Amino acid sequence: MASTKTVYIGIIGAGGVGKCFISQLAQLAVRRPDPKLVLCYISTSKKSLYHADYKPIDISSAVTQLNTASVGAPPPLPEVVKYLSSVPSGSKSVLIDNTSSQDVAESYPLFLRKGVSVVTANKKAFSSDFQLWQDVFDSATAGGAKVYHESSCGAGLPVISTIKDLVDTGDEVTRIEGVFSGTMSFLFNSFAPTEGAGGKWSAEVKKARELGYTEPDPRDDLNGLDVARKLTILARLAGLKVESPTSFPVQSLIPKELESVGSADEFMEKLPGFDGQMDEVKTSAEKEGKVVRFVGSVDVGAGQVKVGLEKFDRSHPIAALKGSDNIISFYTKRYGSNPLIIQGAGAGGEVTAMGVTGDLLKVVSQI
Amino acid sequence: MASTKTVYIGIIGAGGVGKCFISQLAQLAVRRPDPKLVLCYISTSKKSLYHADYKPIDISSAVTQLNTASVGAPPPLPEVVKYLSSVPSGSKSVLIDNTSSQDVAESYPLFLRKGVSVVTANKKAFSSDFQLWQDVFDSATAGGAKVYHESSCGAGLPVISTIKDLVDTGDEVTRIEGVFSGTMSFLFNSFAPTEGAGGKWSAEVKKARELGYTEPDPRDDLNGLDVARKLTILARLAGLKVESPTSFPVQSLIPKELESVGSADEFMEKLPGFDGQMDEVKTSAEKEGKVVRFVGSVDVGAGQVKVGLEKFDRSHPIAALKGSDNIISFYTKRYGSNPLIIQGAGAGGEVTAMGVTGDLLKVVSQI
Repeated sequence: MASTKTVYIGIIGAGGVGKCFISQLAQLAVRRPDPKLVLCYISTSKKSLYHADYKPIDISSAVTQLNTASVGAPPPLPEVVKYLSSVPSGSKSVLIDNTSSQDVAESYPLFLRKGVSVVTANKKAFSSDFQLWQDVFDSATAGGAKVYHESSCGAGLPVISTIKDLVDTGDEVTRIEGVFSGTMSFLFNSFAPTEGAGGKWSAEVKKARELGYTEPDPRDDLNGLDVARKLTILARLAGLKVESPTSFPVQSLIPKELESVGSADEFMEKLPGFDGQMDEVKTSAEKEGKVVRFVGSVDVGAGQVKVGLEKFDRSHPIAALKGSDNIISFYTKRYGSNPLIIQGAGAGGEVTAMGVTGDLLKVVSQI
Repeated sequence: MASTKTVYIGIIGAGGVGKCFISQLAQLAVRRPDPKLVLCYISTSKKSLYHADYKPIDISSAVTQLNTASVGAPPPLPEVVKYLSSVPSGSKSVLIDNTSSQDVAESYPLFLRKGVSVVTANKKAFSSDFQLWQDVFDSATAGGAKVYHESSCGAGLPVISTIKDLVDTGDEVTRIEGVFSGTMSFLFNSFAPTEGAGGKWSAEVKKARELGYTEPDPRDDLNGLDVARKLTILARLAGLKVESPTSFPVQSLIPKELESVGSADEFMEKLPGFDGQMDEVKTSAEKEGKVVRFVGSVDVGAGQVKVGLEKFDRSHPIAALKGSDNIISFYTKRYGSNPLIIQGAGAGGEVTAMGVTGDLLKVVSQI
């Protein structure tokens, strides 16, 4: 029997997902005393809290402590690597990245090479240049560290773990398709519902923004890049060498005429003038008895990835989605003509944080 | 970096699932040389093959070797425990149970207490008396061994891993419902399709039996016990102390009048005489614009588990299932009103074996 080990945890990011994760971690540390989970580092882009002697930071009050004025700015990332890779002998450490920062993502290889495992909801390391993807996994192997990123696609839904299991056990993924954005799901389920007329496009975007279902700047959802990043990750896990999330066709829902608009507010003000474009899309689908949805797909055999609008029969599971649910279908050699389907909330602080917490448990069970 | 370890593997069972697993294992051993996977024991109910010095058995030809006349009958299970727990020092061992044997299931505590991990598609240990369930997990803790059983519900679909992740990360599962039997799914999708009239009940059972979609004796599917066992497992993982698969209401589709019939063939011969009973069920659903399906559900708050026929709107995801697909919906505190749904093939040698292979990989990553 193993004796009680200590795992040191460093957290970067204390926003929506970060706060939910910290609360889940606090409960976890109480519920599962073995191994001992010690929070030794926490930072946001402006502040940081840690002790040179790795004195545990109280998890429940970590965010409050971080918000007090006396704590300092975060050290440069190489310093954090040094700190987390120098934990007391005999113990291991894990970096939790709950930001969407490209800089933090690019530092993963440094952490991993030094034996610090990485768990994250941040898509950037896995969906930017292929070189970074390769560097991340090579570094993990070299450092004997683990890297888990369930919440980088479909929040806490078991999407990444499922495709990894399929591939690792020797199945062949032939096609992946689905709705990968909670925001897009919500927008199209309201704009083009399977029953009833739905609202004007700009009004639905406005409503979604007010409810906090879009990014502060809705164009960050409407440009399709978030979905393209998720498809990049899945395509790579299925075996395709996708160079970047802009190396395949991605349909943007930002009207060409509004591409050079400055602020988000100005964009929202001008959007109603282009409702006609989206009405046309909706009507064209209705004429075929269908509804329009924003989907992504990977055709592994053909090496093709694409993201954009498609028409679906009203009875199709993709058309019948509710709220801001995601749906992801995996077609594989073993599963044949009926795909393996995962469906459910693909956004939200608690469920996204759950993916991170679940990954942390997987890492902890292996170290 | 870890050096190459050896994991010794003992397999019991070389039927449909067993053969698929062995073929997946042979490929895995080539694809992933670290840790080294050594097959040292394989048996069926009649034969066994192993060497006192743990000499590796060639995996690809293991079944052929087992079928040659010169190999002996399997030793008693306590001998197998002794053999697998005495592997060369510094290495670990895993028992793979691909049978549906109650005896083998009841021996898991012996293996686990001696540090031998258990991976299985066999439902029995997790769905019989609560005492055995408790003994299995207590023994695993005591022996520092792992026990994984993904394929005990929904074959290779990520059902067990998902509910474990939900619970382990602190979510509260409030309700589980779905279609848990590939056989029942196939039967009802043909008998009461969402479009068209469907066939006579006894004719559908006959067809399913001929296609190999039922057990050799179809009553082993129709009595509902297989579904009850799966519900028992999920209810226990959700926190309910379910005493046994017969401690809650389970509707049997074996007509009362045929309960004392001897052989399967005689049962099949007499079944058409009772088609009227099932026609009535179908018509009663149709009058409400619905279709009938064989489902299971767990209401965690109320502590209720039940298995049997229920009516669903034709547009309901449960009604719209295809082929022999399973669908499992998890309602939880974090996921709110829209459940987390897993759907896909819930039966078949390759996908069931995949669940076993995936579990083996998880165990191996931890030892």
